[in-house]
Formats: sequence, structure tokens, C-alpha cells
Amino acid sequence: VLLIGIAVCKNESKNKLVVVTVASNATDGYLRFLRSANLYGYSVEVLGMGQPWLGGDVKRYAGGGYKINLLKKYMENHKDDSKTIYLFTDSYDVIFTASAKTLVKKYLEMKARVVFTAERFCWPDSSLSNSYPPVMGSSKYLNSGGFIGTGQSIYEMLTVRDIADTDDDQLYYTQLYLDPDMRNDLGIKLDYENQIFQALFGSEADVKIRAREDEVKEFYLFNAEHNTEPCVLHGNGLAKDTLNSMANYLAGSRTKTDCLICSENNFKIADLPTPPTLQLGIFIERPTPFLPEFFARILAQDYPKEHIHLFIHNREAYHKQHVADFLEHTSSYASITVKGHDSAISEAEARSLGISECLSHACDYYLSVDSEATLTQPMAITLLMELNRTLLAPMMVRPGKMWSNFWGALSDEGFYSRSEDYGEILDNSKRGIWNVPYVSTIYMIRSDVLKSGQVPSFEVQGIADLDVVWAKSLRDKGTFMYVSNVHHYGHLVNPDSYDTSLIRPEYYQLADNRLEWEYRYIHEDFEAMKDPDTVIQQPCPDVYWFPLVTPAFCNDTIAIMEHFGQWSNGANNDKRLPGGYENVPTRDIHMKQVGLERQWMLFLKDYIRLIQEKVFTGYFHNPPVSLMNFVVRYRPDEQPALRPHHDASTYTINIALNNPHVDYEGGGCRFVRQNCSITNTRAGWTLMHPGRLTHFHEGLPVTSGTRYIMISFVDP
Amino acid sequence: VLLIGIAVCKNESKNKLVVVTVASNATDGYLRFLRSANLYGYSVEVLGMGQPWLGGDVKRYAGGGYKINLLKKYMENHKDDSKTIYLFTDSYDVIFTASAKTLVKKYLEMKARVVFTAERFCWPDSSLSNSYPPVMGSSKYLNSGGFIGTGQSIYEMLTVRDIADTDDDQLYYTQLYLDPDMRNDLGIKLDYENQIFQALFGSEADVKIRAREDEVKEFYLFNAEHNTEPCVLHGNGLAKDTLNSMANYLAGSRTKTDCLICSENNFKIADLPTPPTLQLGIFIERPTPFLPEFFARILAQDYPKEHIHLFIHNREAYHKQHVADFLEHTSSYASITVKGHDSAISEAEARSLGISECLSHACDYYLSVDSEATLTQPMAITLLMELNRTLLAPMMVRPGKMWSNFWGALSDEGFYSRSEDYGEILDNSKRGIWNVPYVSTIYMIRSDVLKSGQVPSFEVQGIADLDVVWAKSLRDKGTFMYVSNVHHYGHLVNPDSYDTSLIRPEYYQLADNRLEWEYRYIHEDFEAMKDPDTVIQQPCPDVYWFPLVTPAFCNDTIAIMEHFGQWSNGANNDKRLPGGYENVPTRDIHMKQVGLERQWMLFLKDYIRLIQEKVFTGYFHNPPVSLMNFVVRYRPDEQPALRPHHDASTYTINIALNNPHVDYEGGGCRFVRQNCSITNTRAGWTLMHPGRLTHFHEGLPVTSGTRYIMISFVDP
Ligand SMILES: O=C(O)CCC(=O)C(=O)O
Ligand SMILES: O=C(O)CCC(=O)C(=O)O
Ligand SMILES: [Fe+2]
Ligand SMILES: [Fe+2]
Ligand SMILES: [Mn+2]
Ligand SMILES: [Mn+2]
Ligand SMILES: [Mn+2]
Ligand SMILES: [Mn+2]
Repeated sequence: VLLIGIAVCKNESKNKLVVVTVASNATDGYLRFLRSANLYGYSVEVLGMGQPWLGGDVKRYAGGGYKINLLKKYMENHKDDSKTIYLFTDSYDVIFTASAKTLVKKYLEMKARVVFTAERFCWPDSSLSNSYPPVMGSSKYLNSGGFIGTGQSIYEMLTVRDIADTDDDQLYYTQLYLDPDMRNDLGIKLDYENQIFQALFGSEADVKIRAREDEVKEFYLFNAEHNTEPCVLHGNGLAKDTLNSMANYLAGSRTKTDCLICSENNFKIADLPTPPTLQLGIFIERPTPFLPEFFARILAQDYPKEHIHLFIHNREAYHKQHVADFLEHTSSYASITVKGHDSAISEAEARSLGISECLSHACDYYLSVDSEATLTQPMAITLLMELNRTLLAPMMVRPGKMWSNFWGALSDEGFYSRSEDYGEILDNSKRGIWNVPYVSTIYMIRSDVLKSGQVPSFEVQGIADLDVVWAKSLRDKGTFMYVSNVHHYGHLVNPDSYDTSLIRPEYYQLADNRLEWEYRYIHEDFEAMKDPDTVIQQPCPDVYWFPLVTPAFCNDTIAIMEHFGQWSNGANNDKRLPGGYENVPTRDIHMKQVGLERQWMLFLKDYIRLIQEKVFTGYFHNPPVSLMNFVVRYRPDEQPALRPHHDASTYTINIALNNPHVDYEGGGCRFVRQNCSITNTRAGWTLMHPGRLTHFHEGLPVTSGTRYIMISFVDP
Repeated sequence: VLLIGIAVCKNESKNKLVVVTVASNATDGYLRFLRSANLYGYSVEVLGMGQPWLGGDVKRYAGGGYKINLLKKYMENHKDDSKTIYLFTDSYDVIFTASAKTLVKKYLEMKARVVFTAERFCWPDSSLSNSYPPVMGSSKYLNSGGFIGTGQSIYEMLTVRDIADTDDDQLYYTQLYLDPDMRNDLGIKLDYENQIFQALFGSEADVKIRAREDEVKEFYLFNAEHNTEPCVLHGNGLAKDTLNSMANYLAGSRTKTDCLICSENNFKIADLPTPPTLQLGIFIERPTPFLPEFFARILAQDYPKEHIHLFIHNREAYHKQHVADFLEHTSSYASITVKGHDSAISEAEARSLGISECLSHACDYYLSVDSEATLTQPMAITLLMELNRTLLAPMMVRPGKMWSNFWGALSDEGFYSRSEDYGEILDNSKRGIWNVPYVSTIYMIRSDVLKSGQVPSFEVQGIADLDVVWAKSLRDKGTFMYVSNVHHYGHLVNPDSYDTSLIRPEYYQLADNRLEWEYRYIHEDFEAMKDPDTVIQQPCPDVYWFPLVTPAFCNDTIAIMEHFGQWSNGANNDKRLPGGYENVPTRDIHMKQVGLERQWMLFLKDYIRLIQEKVFTGYFHNPPVSLMNFVVRYRPDEQPALRPHHDASTYTINIALNNPHVDYEGGGCRFVRQNCSITNTRAGWTLMHPGRLTHFHEGLPVTSGTRYIMISFVDP
């Protein structure tokens, strides 16, 4: 269905075209090649499939004479065929980008017996470059990754002389071409203008992906040097990753608006007799904020736990209790293996162990999840499986940051580089399944990849980090790394500023891990308060009252303050204040004293202010300013009450941190001029009232227990 | 009645005492002498009364032999009387300060035939000082202003040799005393220790007025050098003014709490067959603020106008219209004479003319009033007359200042000096009728003084000002100047900062003439607003509304602004503001632009703040601060309305300067959040509302006419 409208042209020309390729394995690249051939109407003959490759290590040295010998053998049956056109091409690093019909038409127009790809580099013997005839254009040299000719012409060319399997195929053809008589006799031309062939390496800047200006807006390949639309794109040399990126768009992979490839090769778990077996590897390799929430979301995954085997590696003593708490809820899982912080295995060993566990449990999928990757999507496991890719990472981003679990491109040194589409993918303005050169933190691997030994070990080589090494070896093996933002799966927690020496370290994480912070600390009813249609309660005139923070917030605030313990003495002179003097002092601790000033300013700006602007129409002060933010402790034996006063604020925030009749008796806030008291305060609910002029107020006496409130004098 | 309790001791000693004095006129001093003699039980024989003084000009030269000759003649009838004691004394500059009985007792204890006053200066022949015998104490020399002895002894002394009327009496006695034989024969002693006599000149520092520590707390005279209580106080030499001041307290003039002398010699106009005729002289000698109010209070004097003759001198063209306005209401007066600014008579001539007018109208009293002296007491004329003094100034003070229409003492150069009691008199903590060395600006003179020629002309001599010269000549003539603060009569307007080049100069006078300013500009109902029991209207929540200023205020404000005319253009950029930018600009003129910033700050502090503190409980900000104080003009064709906004204030003052349905249609102030409009605003009434947060508000469109409001953003 998704293919509807793409200009698919079946081979209907009079001249029959046969594509011949040599491939020993059905790699991701090979399958991609076949898909594109299929889409554009090419018939493909594959030589050497399932047989060992005998052509040498072509990545590092010259070689490939094996291909000539396979081809020569194949062409013996067609040596007299001057009608059928044979296109010989690589397949792992090649895709078709136009229809067979178009290609044949162009070949015929070139009026040559054999047409070879032209490329930028004179290889494998650069000394031969001076022997080439002068040409207009930048691609002057013969590339043997793609050529075309009639059966007769090709056979003639292959049989000029013999070649060893490990000799270089490209050198063979080059020598024929550079001999002017031979060139003439065989009728060989190079495709200088990229009419048919585009060798990518060195020409990346000339090669563009454009969208047709029609309704479908299919992407096509365009050579800007010659204004041509090549039909065969070859990621030769070091251009493999560039090809991978371009292939995300070409050959009907997507349109400007839709990911077409995303719905290809899917399946439904519900259609299977039994759900696939998942090995889930959880890696806590460094202190990570909001780990309880992370585990809660693992537990919340909507996938039958009896089909999930758990493996946990926790390297941090700090998280021991969190893991223990999690393990209280894991009895339904198929199996559990835990390597705690005292197990003395390395990260690499742990990660390898996770894969071994998978294999030993005869898993169908392996999902590796680091503690930073929090899976807010309960269907994540199912959704990932059903996309049916060999290695698929759910895209996870640090909210609002250009930081994710994948790289869009590689730098020359093989590290992070931003691709042109990186930002659009991160913010979901482009959705799809993306072939990328690096994924980490969370990814799912189909077990066939593991079984075929495609996934190498995590052992660090030299200075590169484990993840970088691992991704590089995947690239080297030709295993495609896909990242999906088809769905939203979760996000990355940012552990950078997590300071476990603090008493309640998550409380300090508002700026760096806002989503998690809100989930833990913002009252579930607060969101509704922002709604213009929600009427906010006014227990006294112009005094607003609404749910703001959770019990966790209240408890953590009190815990932090009591742990700090340096309550002020209630005297007028107060060195903490800019003026050194407080007219109506409370027994309190300032947020500044416990290192929370910066976070509190953010809290005022991003939560308090929104309600303020709603209830006090027309008042805008962004960001709110507050020099006095503190927790007050009222006790009958210490400071039971606060005499009537005004605050040094435009408006005041007064958050109840505990509850009357539970934690204390008495207390509350009385507005003198309005003769109105609020004594039924609720932990997590805040008062918001004008600070000056109209709202003379007092703290009513606490008669037993301890009352805690959090006060902020906003816009002094 | 008032004398009850004062220790009055009638002469009941066995030895009869006769006081003999020489006086040609019944001056104020003479009458004061007699009153004290009377009070303390002395019988007085007066020699030379009604006869011309033949003793020379004793103020400037020696002289007084005349007194010896008069006395010698008198004593011829008592030359053999050795029982009766004769006390000879001056009278104009003398008062008794103890009873006759006490005095006689002391005389007898001194065991001398004749006792003379001892004084500090050897006069009239200082070369004789070496001939005096050495004594302990500072007063070594004979003074002839007071001596005492039996009839026989005195006669013997007077007849030692002859003396011419114009020779010096003191020299006569001195020569007798300095002759040791004569001294011995005559039995003369000097009262070194001030047992009986106190000559004041040179001894001012030793002479104290003390209050008895009993219930009555009568004042008495005390000599601190000798710890004595002299009985006869003589303001000899240059000590006349000092004596006058002391006499305000001594001889039962007052107690610590009551003015006893105030109710002596009073009368009731109601008891007279017809009210006394008053000549009222009004002198406008310089530009004076609030002259219309001054005239209104003249008109408001509760005294039959047919018994008042008016004389007006106006030297200022600026006040011509004010005088003309006044003259529209003066038809009931007995007569009117006006010397306008074009009449070209001098101030001195005008003041003399006033007195001539009085005499020509056979007046009983002359009341001279300068335009600075505003008579807020409608009974002032009556009250002054009934106190029945020869020259009596109603005390008038610049409110809150140490500045009045009298001087408490004189400097050595004859100018202003502050007496010890000046402050207590000014602030009415001591009330009474006070003999002072200088009065001006407003005073009443009984016509007998004028008729007797006691009031000299006002002609300036040398550099001294007219008023100074005039007061000095009064002192020289022995006419006492009394100032009364028995009642409150009015106050002095301060013309110092009055700038008639301004369009409405009185409007600028808040700081310098607050009482007048309030009278003209503060709404009559405003005072009641301050009362804690008066509920201030709240047309919208926390928006207060109350009468503040008068129509005159509104009109003058508009007049000043329209005369200035430089209304802002309503643009956001505004060079007048500290930040150069106004988000919600109005068409306005700032108080600062018309030189009224300082006054406005005072207005906020002394009027607005009081209501603010009442209505917005607990908010104290003194003084209020306001950087934006301006008059807004709304017109359909210019700026008809003001969009919703907040003010840069803690609270805002919004005074209506004119009236809807009279001066314009539409307009008013709407509080958006409260959905509450105030459209029935009233000129002179102000709104007071919170500026920020709770009171988002707008100026509603004016559809015709012009609306003016005065705005102040208090405590930004
Ligand atoms: O006790 C209360 O709720 C009032 C506290 C308060 O007004 C303050 O801390 O400024
Ligand atoms: O027109 C009014 O009464 C409101 C004026 C006002 O809000 C302002 O000038 O700030
Ligand atoms: Fe407060
Ligand atoms: Fe306003
Ligand atoms: Mn090759
Ligand atoms: Mn290749
Ligand atoms: Mn004398
Ligand atoms: Mn004298």
C-alpha cells in the first residue's frame, strides 16, 4: 500500500537487461540491493552466493579477480548474445536509483559496446593516471564496480587474458582501457557524466538527493556537476556510510512526509503462535538519577514477563537498594541473572554476558538497556520487535537537547558528527527507521545476527570507548544499525550532574532531568491547573490555592532541611539576607543554604509563573525573581507562630509540606485585613497571594507537633 | 479671683512704711509699679505727677537733682519723724517683688539709718570708684534709684547741701557716702547683699526667677550671688527690657500654669453702651500668597462692620484684583479708604496714614494688619479689645516654625534674640500676655496711646527696617508692647517663596503655607476620612474612593497643565522617564515638568499616605516614593482610552479632575480581573488601588469632551 504512486517501471524495453552481481552472504546491504532492483524492475543473477569468497580482502588491498572469473564462467552461456544487455555491479554497497527502462535507454544513447563507471581516484595503481586521456569533469578513472554491455561484448572483454582470483579486477579492466587499440576494439567508454553510474567516494559534494516537484515527492539522485540523474549508486571506497544515509531517502524508502520502508517486512506478534523470547540486559554502569522510575517502567512494559529473561549488571554500590527493590517485583520473569557491584566483572564482560545469556536462553531478541534509557512507552518491546530489523535502536533523546542514542554521521576520525537531518529526526519532524553509523544505550538485536556471529565483543581497543568500538565493528561487518523514531519509546536521563553525595540527589535534578523530576515531584493535578477552564480555588480574596507538588517533594524538602539542620535562630539580624535584617523573622533554612537556589528559580519560572499569569491577569514578570526562598519550621517550643506582616514580594508562594491534624495541631495562615484564615492546608498544595499592601497576614500558632512550609517571596 | 493664693502681705508692722516716688506721667511702667506696690501692701506717695519733668534727660546724661528737690520739699513735713520709714524709689523701671512687711523686717535687721541700693557701675563719675571701701561681692557702688531710712535720717541727708534740679542726684548721695565722717554721721549703708534692693543692670546673670515649691508655685526673685530674695527690682541703666521680661513672671503676674495678669483690667464689650470704634489698617506691602483667604477672614470678623473704618494700602499691582474683589463686599463698613499700588505713597507714609485715619475717625482702637497676618479667629477684634492693653499684638506664628510677629528679647545690637521662653510661648505651652521688646505685622493700639502722641512715626532711620525702628521708638517712649497668646487668633502666611510669575502660584505653596494650602485645596470631607471609624468606600474590591481635594485644586491643576501645554505624544519612547520607555503611554504632563515634583512628594506623604495606612492595614512606606506623577488628558480625537495594563506602583492614586456628564461623556476606570468599572467619578475624589498583580485595569473611552485625571504611581 505504501508503495502506491512511486514511479516503478518494469523492464519493458525491447532490449532485455540482466543484472549480474557477486555476493557470498545475504547481508543487510545485499537485501537492500535486491529491494531496489525489485522496485525498479531489474532481473538479478547472483553469482557465488553461499560459496566462500575467494577474492581477497578487498577492504584493505587490491583484489577481486574472483569476480571476473565467476562472471566469465557465467557469460560463457551468453557469449554470442548481442541483444541482451548485461549490467555487472557490486551489491553490498550499491542501490538502484532509477528504472531499468531508463537505464537501458541511456546505455543505448551512449553508443558504446561497454560502458564503465567513472570515478575520482586512479586505483589500484595511481601511477597510471597520466596514461588516461584528458576529459572534462572530475571523474576520469575507470571503476569496475559497475559496467554494462551486450553479452557478446562483455564476454570478449573478459577473455582477453586470464586473471588469478586474488588479482585485482579493476586493474584488469583498466589495462584494457588504457591500451587505445584495445579500447577501440572492445568499444569501451567511461560514464564520465554519470548518466548511468555514480561512484560516491570523493563525489559526495556533487551528489544530491532531491524531491520531485510532483504530488508524491519521491526522492531521486542528482549529479550537480553534470545535471544528470544516475541510475546506479555505488558507495565505493570509504563512502559506505554516506551511501547508508542516502539510502534512507532513495529507492522509495520514504517521501517527504512518509516513511515507506517502515512498513515493509513488519509482522504482528499476535499473528505468531507464541510471543518471541526476549533477553533483556539492564546495565547500570554509572550512578543514574531516577533509577526507581527506570525500573518501574521496565516492570510496566506490556510484554508477557514469562517470555522475558532478565540480566542485570549493576556496577554502582549506590544503586544496590534500588536493584533490590526492583527484584521484589520480578518473580514473573522467565529467569533472572544479576551481577551486582561486588561481582567484579567489567562493563565489556557484562555486556558480552548479556548476549551469552540470550543465546543460552534460545532468545529471539536481545534488548540491551542502559540505566539512562527510560522506557516510558509500555508497548516499546512489542513495537520494536514488530518493525523486524536486525539491529534496531528506539530513538531516545535527552529532552530538549541535541543529544541522543545515535549518531547521524561520522567524523573523519570515526566519531560523532551531525548529519543534515539529525535535528529533524531528534525533534520528530522526520519520522522513520534510519540507517545510522552509531547507536548505543538501548537497542534490540534479532538473534539471527547474534547466532551468525555478526556481533563482535565489546572489548575496548586503544583509546576508543566501548560503545564506539562496538559500533565500528558493526559497521565493519556490514550489519546495519537502525534507529527508529516511528514511535516514541522514552528518553535519556542525564546523569552528568547527579551527585550521590547529596541527601536527596534527585531533588536537585530539575534543570537536567526535567521530565523525571516532574514525574516524581509535580502533583498529578497540577497540569489541569494550567488549563484556562480550570477555576483555581480562592479560599480568601485574591489568595489562590492549588495542588503543586507531590508527597515525595514534601518529604524530600523536609529531609534535606532537617539533614542540613542549621535552622536560623529567629533573630532580626540575619547574615543570609542582602540587607542583613529581617523585620519578621522565621525559624528557617534558605534554599540557597542547601544549594537549591538555581533550581528554585527554574521552578518559579516554569511552574509557579504559569499559574500566576493565569490568576493575576496581565501581570507578566518573566523570569520571576526571588531572593528569599526558604522552609519554615513552626514548633510550640521554638517558633509557634508569625506575627502579622507583609512579605517583601509582589506575590508569595506558601507550600504546605505536611498536614494539620496528622503532623501538627493549629497552624495555618490568616489574612488580617480580609479576616480570613486557611487552616485546612494540604501537603503539596500551595497558597499564592499578593505580598504587600492588601494582604497583611500572619502564621497562626502551632499548638503541637511540627509544621513545615516552603515560602518564596516572588518579585520583591 | 485669680489672685487667690498669692502670698499677699499687707503692711502690718509696727513701723509704718511710706513709699515715695517721683513720676510725671502715668506710663505703662508707672502703672505696673503701682500694681506691684498694691499687691504687696505698700502705701505710695507720688511726687511731681502731671507736672513737667525738670530733671534733665537722664537717659543720656547725668541729672535728677529735681528728684532730690521734690523729695526734700515732701520730707519737710516729716523731718522729725523717726518712727516712719521712707522708701524712696524710681517707678517707671521698678517693681516690688516682696511684701512691705518683709522689707521692713530686713531694713530693721540691717541696723543702719539709711540703706542705699548697691550696683555694679560707678556712675556718673567712675573716677570715684577708688574712693569706695573694699567689699565682698560684685555690687560695690551706690545707686540712688532706691534707698530707705526713717523720716528724720532722710531729711538730714537731703539737707546737707543744696542741689540744682539738673545736677545729678546720684552724685550728690555718692559724695556724702564717700566722706567717711558724713557716712558715719548719717548712718548710710549700701545693700551689698541685695537684701532689699536689686539693681538689675550688670547683674542679670545673678538674678533668677524661681517658683516656690508649694502648691501655688508663685514666682519670686532670687539673687544667686548672695542667696537673697530682694524686695525691690530696679531695671536701671540698660536693663529696662530685661526687667520687662522678668515682670511677665514676678509680682503675681502668673503662676507656672496660669496667667493671672491676663484677667486684670479686662472689660466686656457687651457691657458697653456701644461697641468701640475700630480703625482697621490693612497693609499689603509685598506679594502675599492666599490673599483672597486673608480678605475673607477680615470679612468674617465677628464685629459690627458699621463700627469699623477700613484703610487699605496695597503696594502690589499683582494684588489689584484681589483688593477689588474684596471691595465688592465692604459696603457695610463705616468708611473705606484705599491707597492702591499706583498711589505712590511709601510704606511709612501709608502706616502713618492709617493712624491719622484712626484719629480722624475718633477711633477707640487701631488694628494694623499686614497681609501676612491671617485672622482665622472670627472673634479676634473683640478678644483683643477686651484684654484692654495699650498696645497688644495677637501672637501669630508661621505654623511649625520659630518665626512669629514678636521678639522675646533683644540682641546687644537691638535686633532679634530668642528669649528663654520664646519657644514655649510660640507653641502655646505657656499662655499669657507678654511684655516684649518688639512686635510687628499685626497689633492693636488703644487710641489714648495715639492721642497722647506715644506712637512715633514709621520713618526709617539709617539701615534699620521700619518695623525695627518703630519698635525701638516705642521702647524708648516707655510704651509697653504686649503680645497675647491667651487665644489663638490666626497665623502668619509665609511669602518668601511666593512666585507670582507662576500661573497658579498658591498651588506651589504646600510646603511653605500648609494651612492656607489645605484650606484652599484639601476637600472639606478629607479630614473625616482619616478617622478610623469612617469607612472608606470600595466601589471595586480593594479599590478605595474618597474625597481628597477641592474644585480649586482640580481647576488649578488643569489650568497649570494647559498653560504649560506640552502634552506628551502618547508614544512608547518617553525621555522624561528613567528607563526612557513606557509600555502603556498616556497623553500627559508630569508634575516634574511644571516644577511640582517636590510638592507632590509632600502631598503623598502627608495626605495620601494617611489613608493608605488606614485602608491597607500593615503597609508602611514613609515617605512614599513616586517617580511618575502626571495629569492625563483623554479626548476622543487624541487619546480616548487606555488599554488594560498594570502600573509601576505598589498602589496608584487616580484623582478625577473633572466630571462625567458635565465635562465629558464616557471615561472611567475599569478593573478587568474584577470586571468592575467606576464611571461615576467625581472631581476631587480619588481612587486608590493596588498597582500590580491583582488590579489589571484600563481607562474607558471618552466619547466626547475632555477628561482629566491626575495619576501617581506610588512605591514603584
Ligand atoms: O505560617 C504561614 O502560613 C505564613 C508564613 C508567612 O507569612 C511568611 O513566612 O512570610
Ligand atoms: O483612565 C483611568 O482612570 C485609568 C488611568 C490609568 O490607569 C493610568 O494612567 O495608569
Ligand atoms: Fe508572609
Ligand atoms: Fe494605570
Ligand atoms: Mn571494488
Ligand atoms: Mn563496492
Ligand atoms: Mn536713675
Ligand atoms: Mn531707674
